[in-house]
Amino acid sequence: MKGTVGELGEFGLIRELTSRLTTTPAVRLGPGDDAAVVAAPDRRVVASTDILLEGRHFRRDWSTAYDVGRKAAAQNMADIAAMGAVPTALLLGLVVPAELPATWPAELMDGLRDECQVAGAAVVGGDVVRGETITVSITALGDLRNAEPVLRSGARPGDVVAVTGWLGWSAAGHAVLSRGFRSPRAFVEAHRRPEPPYHAGPAAAALGATAMTDVSDGLIADLGHIAEASGVRIDVRSGAVDIPSQMSDIGQAVGVDPLHWVLSGGEDHAIAAVFPPETKLPARWRVIGEVLGRSALPQVTVDGAPWEKAGWDHFGEDADAG
Amino acid sequence: MKGTVGELGEFGLIRELTSRLTTTPAVRLGPGDDAAVVAAPDRRVVASTDILLEGRHFRRDWSTAYDVGRKAAAQNMADIAAMGAVPTALLLGLVVPAELPATWPAELMDGLRDECQVAGAAVVGGDVVRGETITVSITALGDLRNAEPVLRSGARPGDVVAVTGWLGWSAAGHAVLSRGFRSPRAFVEAHRRPEPPYHAGPAAAALGATAMTDVSDGLIADLGHIAEASGVRIDVRSGAVDIPSQMSDIGQAVGVDPLHWVLSGGEDHAIAAVFPPETKLPARWRVIGEVLGRSALPQVTVDGAPWEKAGWDHFGEDADAG
Repeated sequence: MKGTVGELGEFGLIRELTSRLTTTPAVRLGPGDDAAVVAAPDRRVVASTDILLEGRHFRRDWSTAYDVGRKAAAQNMADIAAMGAVPTALLLGLVVPAELPATWPAELMDGLRDECQVAGAAVVGGDVVRGETITVSITALGDLRNAEPVLRSGARPGDVVAVTGWLGWSAAGHAVLSRGFRSPRAFVEAHRRPEPPYHAGPAAAALGATAMTDVSDGLIADLGHIAEASGVRIDVRSGAVDIPSQMSDIGQAVGVDPLHWVLSGGEDHAIAAVFPPETKLPARWRVIGEVLGRSALPQVTVDGAPWEKAGWDHFGEDADAG
Repeated sequence: MKGTVGELGEFGLIRELTSRLTTTPAVRLGPGDDAAVVAAPDRRVVASTDILLEGRHFRRDWSTAYDVGRKAAAQNMADIAAMGAVPTALLLGLVVPAELPATWPAELMDGLRDECQVAGAAVVGGDVVRGETITVSITALGDLRNAEPVLRSGARPGDVVAVTGWLGWSAAGHAVLSRGFRSPRAFVEAHRRPEPPYHAGPAAAALGATAMTDVSDGLIADLGHIAEASGVRIDVRSGAVDIPSQMSDIGQAVGVDPLHWVLSGGEDHAIAAVFPPETKLPARWRVIGEVLGRSALPQVTVDGAPWEKAGWDHFGEDADAG
């Protein structure tokens, strides 16, 4: 494929993008008509939308178009999994500059497609328009398979807090890239292409999770959403979280306590869930804290005390491209 | 509400926007969790995404935020209706500059909400991020109520082509605004705030429509999509389309044949459908043409001959803000 998006034209680009897609049995009607039709066997559909902007959520010199596609799909489908649902379909709204090489949106679509395949879903439709800033707007759909959705509001004092997936890897990779390095590769890769544990969402619902969320803004911040919605306090035990030795090495090299990445770093899209204390959790879940009653302390504490930095406001001036 | 989007902050803005919403019985879980949950009684969900950019699809000096919201919701839900489905829910992806007054997204949300209410749907979730260009990405969901989706591909030679809703009004309003005028008000209003005949989509499905689309790119262009998907030619009878006398007056004033607006103007989101010839159509449908077999002529002809300008490529250099 040669040339720019502008040379290919709207319909040429749409043809190119849709030609790259695969399908699943849930896709009753894919791209090309006024709308797509997707199976919703549960008689309810779970839906979530996220927007990624170039320069704010990704950088073309740090991530390939393919990786941006993987990441955009992953962060949306992690939201579906965090409700206890199985991702089924994805719609893409894409803004591209006319002078952008047409390979960029094509490879983005490859990334969306491949991440969808990991989760058992498919891209079913979208819209492409010309504009100044590359903008990737994703809507993911999912099916609950007769489970009740696991909300943020069900945590009760006495419940345990557990996580599965990766924590702090993306933030450590971001720190590496920010300093102009390209390795250790595992962390850089984790930043470019998160691997949410999609299966863990429906599994947690089946285990009786009382509350659940994916970790997109950072563990403390996202547990704060559960604590606020549930009217409880959550205490995290710092000794219970996993800090791989390689992450400690990076922390030492760049002068950052790696606990900061694990507790405040977002974008790994781990799943954090709250369970009744008697729940027998499979080995991939790690209990990292417990649910307490309200107190004068912040909604989330670490080892019983306030934590330094509780979040990531995407409108804050300090939020740079990640 | 005072101040800018940046002063309000991400979470403040999301609180403000969600506080303005209403709900429907189909909304099982609205905004505030990782994802929304919407009833899909048909066991299938219809889904469509569109993006609107400031300067390209709307202008802040021509349209209020409220009108942009009405229009963005309308164009998406028209896509749902054009499948024969009933709109149920809408998700919003929004990019806003930090210096934008916070009233703008708030009034946009009011417009989305009110248009949803017209169609029986509700806004159930979304995402807001800071960026340079106001970008409104909408995903609409709908339910087929046990009807089969009406595709673009089912038109057969001998079928009749009919339309319902408004045709050319938005284009005439655009012509008026482009020349610096603000009246006639009915056409300017039609440009700012289209009124798709949502009910007509499911009604056409029930009447046995063999193909259907909404008119977003212009009648000739959108019938072209049906003709291409169905492998047929469609002939439109120019004498059968409705040109109100006031539209003729505007045409005379600005030196444009109003037939051009009716046949090539988009964004009114009328519904165009193809029916078996024996179908008894309700009075609101107007038969404007017929389906013929393939020939050497273009896929859509007017009075048996090629039509001057068959479309609107959103990537074309001549496509200005509308």
